[in-house]
This record gives sequence, C-alpha cells and structure tokens, in this order.
Amino acid sequence: MNVKKIGFIGTGVMGGSMAKHLLEGGYHINVYTRTKEKATELLDAGASWYETPAELAADSDVVITMVGFPSDVEEVYIGTHGILKHAKPGTYFIDMTTSSPSLAIQISREAEKRGMFALDAPVSGGDVGAKNGTLTIMVGGEEKPFQDMMPILTLLGQNIVLQGSAGSGQHTKMCNQIAIASNMVGVCEALAYAKKTGLDPEKVLTSISAGAAGSWSLSNLAPRIINDNFEPGFYIKHFIKDMKIAIDEAEKMNLHVPGLSLAKQLYESVSQLGEENSGTQALFKLWNN
Amino acid sequence: MNVKKIGFIGTGVMGGSMAKHLLEGGYHINVYTRTKEKATELLDAGASWYETPAELAADSDVVITMVGFPSDVEEVYIGTHGILKHAKPGTYFIDMTTSSPSLAIQISREAEKRGMFALDAPVSGGDVGAKNGTLTIMVGGEEKPFQDMMPILTLLGQNIVLQGSAGSGQHTKMCNQIAIASNMVGVCEALAYAKKTGLDPEKVLTSISAGAAGSWSLSNLAPRIINDNFEPGFYIKHFIKDMKIAIDEAEKMNLHVPGLSLAKQLYESVSQLGEENSGTQALFKLWNN
Repeated sequence: MNVKKIGFIGTGVMGGSMAKHLLEGGYHINVYTRTKEKATELLDAGASWYETPAELAADSDVVITMVGFPSDVEEVYIGTHGILKHAKPGTYFIDMTTSSPSLAIQISREAEKRGMFALDAPVSGGDVGAKNGTLTIMVGGEEKPFQDMMPILTLLGQNIVLQGSAGSGQHTKMCNQIAIASNMVGVCEALAYAKKTGLDPEKVLTSISAGAAGSWSLSNLAPRIINDNFEPGFYIKHFIKDMKIAIDEAEKMNLHVPGLSLAKQLYESVSQLGEENSGTQALFKLWNN
Repeated sequence: MNVKKIGFIGTGVMGGSMAKHLLEGGYHINVYTRTKEKATELLDAGASWYETPAELAADSDVVITMVGFPSDVEEVYIGTHGILKHAKPGTYFIDMTTSSPSLAIQISREAEKRGMFALDAPVSGGDVGAKNGTLTIMVGGEEKPFQDMMPILTLLGQNIVLQGSAGSGQHTKMCNQIAIASNMVGVCEALAYAKKTGLDPEKVLTSISAGAAGSWSLSNLAPRIINDNFEPGFYIKHFIKDMKIAIDEAEKMNLHVPGLSLAKQLYESVSQLGEENSGTQALFKLWNN
C-alpha cells in the first residue's frame, strides 16, 4: 500500500506533536482542527489546511483523529458531514482519541461497508510521550490494516500492540484508566494520612515508593501534590470522561466496578470544586480542604 | 553501646530469616516463639531458647519482636508477664510487627518510664526481603536509640529511615498499606474488565504495565492472578488486620478514607469466601466467581 497524504483531525497538545512526527517522517499532512490557530506550526511546516473534516477526508489516504470526547468522534465520523461519507473507498481511519469501545465497533462496521478500514488506537504516555514519539498505542481492528498502518504508528509510539478486533484498543485503554483510578485514590489517601499524622510526606515516599506500594502515580504525581503543583499532565475533566466510558461499558457487561465508581464520584466532587482543568493529582484537594 | 545478646520474639517466616541474619552478624541470639518447632533451625545454629518472653527479655540487651497482631504485641510488651516489666534498665526494644501506632506510643512511654528505649520499626519487602536482608524499615522513636540500633537494623534491611517520634514507623507503614489497598482494587477491576471484554489479559499488561497505570502490584501480582496463582506472598488475613489499624487511626484523626474502607470491605468479603490464608491477589476471586 502506498500512503502519501495523511489527514490529521485534532491538532491540540497531543495531536499537534503527533502530526509533526508524521510530517518529519516524510508524509504530506492535511490538517483540520476546531481552532485553526492550533495548526499554525504545522501549516508553517508545510501541512495543508482544510476547512472541514469531510474535505480533508476526501483528499487523504489515511485519516487520523485525535479529538476530545466520544461525541466529537461520533460527529467527525458518522455525523451528517462525517468523514466516512466523504472519504474514498480504501481509506484507512485511525481514531487515537480515548473514546467508547462500542462507538469504535460501530465506526469499524460502517467503514467496512464502504470498503474502508478503521482502527481504534488510543494512546498513553501523555504530552511528553506524544512529543518524544514514545506513546504506548493500544490497537483494535484487523491484522491486515494494522500491519499496513505500522509504519505510521511507529513514528508516533514504541509499545504498539494489536489487542484484538475493533474496540479492543479502547477496551485496553479502559483497563489502563481503571487501574489508575483506584490507585489515585490510594495515593491521595496515603498522603492525606501522612500529613494528618504529622509525618514528613517526602520522607514517607522515601520509605514506600520503591516497594509493594510503589506505582507510577506515587513516584510521579505524589511529589507534585507535596509541592502544591496541580498543573495538568492529564486533565481531570478528561479523566472523568474516560471513567464514564468505562463505567458504561462495565454496566453493559454486568461487571461490578466499585473502586472505579468511587473514584469517579470523588473526581466529580473535586471537579465541582472548580478543578476540572487541573491535573488528576488535584484529587488530593478533597482531603486538603 | 555494647550489644551482646539480642532476644528475638516471633521467629515465623519473616522473623526466622531476620534472626538468622543477626546470628550471622555475630550476635548471640536468644529466642522465644509460640511454636518451638519454628525455632529449630536457629537453635541448631547456636541460638538459646527461653520458655517465656519475660525470661528472654531479662537476659537480653536488645529485644526484637516480630509477632502477629497488635493484641500479641500488647500481651508481649505490657501484659502481666510482659517484657517491659522483666527487662533490665537500658534495654532496647524494637517492635518490627506491623501494629498500632497508638500502641507503639504507649510502649515507648512505658519503656521511657523504666529507663529503657523503644522503637517501632515495621518493615516491607515480605519474606523475600527478610531472607535477603533487603527489607525496607520504617522507624519511629528518638534519634539516639535509632542510631544505637543502626548496626543491627543494617543487617536486616537497606532502606532504613527514621520517620519521626514513637509511632511514626507504624504510621508510615499504614501509608504504605493505604496506597496498596486501593491499588489492588484497581488492579483486580482492570483485569476483570479485560477478561469480561474477551481481551487477552497478558497482552493488556504488555500495553499498560509500563505507563501511568503501572505499579508493583500490576507487575508482580496481576501475572499471578492471570496464572491462577493465589499463593500467599502476603496473607489476606494480615492485610485486613493492617487496614483495620489504619481505619482506626484515620477515624481518631477524623480523616475520610473511602478508598481504604471500600478495599477493607471487599477484602472481608473475599475472606468470608474462605480466602483468608490466600495472598492479597486473591481479591480477584470476588470478580471471578
């Protein structure tokens, strides 16, 4: 297969870095994003601007989407002006937004009907991973289009795994978020307990970070909490979105997720305190108030 | 200070390995443990047996305790035949049991009244850490006795931190257990979600273990769950004990710990299914039934 033009929809913090890697990888990049200013750097570097996702899709061999919410994914793909209706047969779609597994399955079916190929391929690794091209990419879809897209995905990430059929990438990302959700509650409670007993939280981390209590969050986010740094690495509002998707899916499967439900409820409480645009570590403010 | 005889009370899986390191370190070891057979190896290696903790304490310069529950610690230290009443002035006590911070404070005060010194020094690192002398030791007490005991503690562990005054070692261990508790819920729910959606849980771990969802439990216990290995690294019954202590202390401080409360409740449920002597990863059986 011969990919020349990659359309990129959604060039925010993550998408912008990702599109840049593809440009540097020698592809011609077509760009659409809601706020045109966010594409300035890419356009200056030679990317082509399209006024609508539909026009972009009609002129691209591969379309990558990195938008906000499942409702955005739905609108972009299967809305009245959706890209599925306007792309050429044989087009590949890669949705890298963290979105609903059920929606991913629906998009994949619609694509197939039209002789197109869709992969769901959400990522982890955040803005730093996007910038360094070291994202973890969790893919759902068929083997053949996955292999066809590997040269492109390899420009964006390192740990790239086909997890199964359509929706499996999103499901895997949900596993990731479910594990994080309860762990963040534990990290915050441990720090709150440390502070309340008058311990030095930094010294406590020295004792507990390297052992069985250790986690990425304890090593990376707990120090930020101690230093009152609640800047977003990952927004609370996006994390709540992800937890909602996971809970919806769990309910459909009749799966009991009390830890996840508690975490979502706590995150909604802290969001209501005005922290929706803070980083996920700001959950701690529930205990600090 | 000149320590010749170290009394060791409680030579189970952990205590047995620890006492052996001290013996190999050149100290004379006095031993008492509830089931004498568990001391056989130590006695064969030259340790001296005492029929009661009181007699042992009367003939030791330092007494280390590694028993089961706070009630055992209380009985050994301040019961009618307690070691505090029978030890010589100037004796050092190191309680390495995971026990109640409030009790540690009480023991420390009683010791001080008698011209003795007490440290609370619970550990993490499990049987492997005890065997290899690589335990993390979280210490509460005064600086001087802590420094005096360092040559002994160094034979048992690597990451040895004086966290603060009496009780601070136990409080730090509670932080450790609080962080683990919610994380285990997240790990189990993530795996349960993966299985229920038909994903390959091992493949999912490949995608999520190295990133923001990563933790010691996800890397070390999730693979055991996948392989139906519920052998105890750390017993559920002991973990429940620790969570109870932490919740008691949190309540005293008026600290809200919903994640910990949920974890304890779930662990009690699985314990009631007959899993109290399984490893903490057997929490997963709540989802697998």
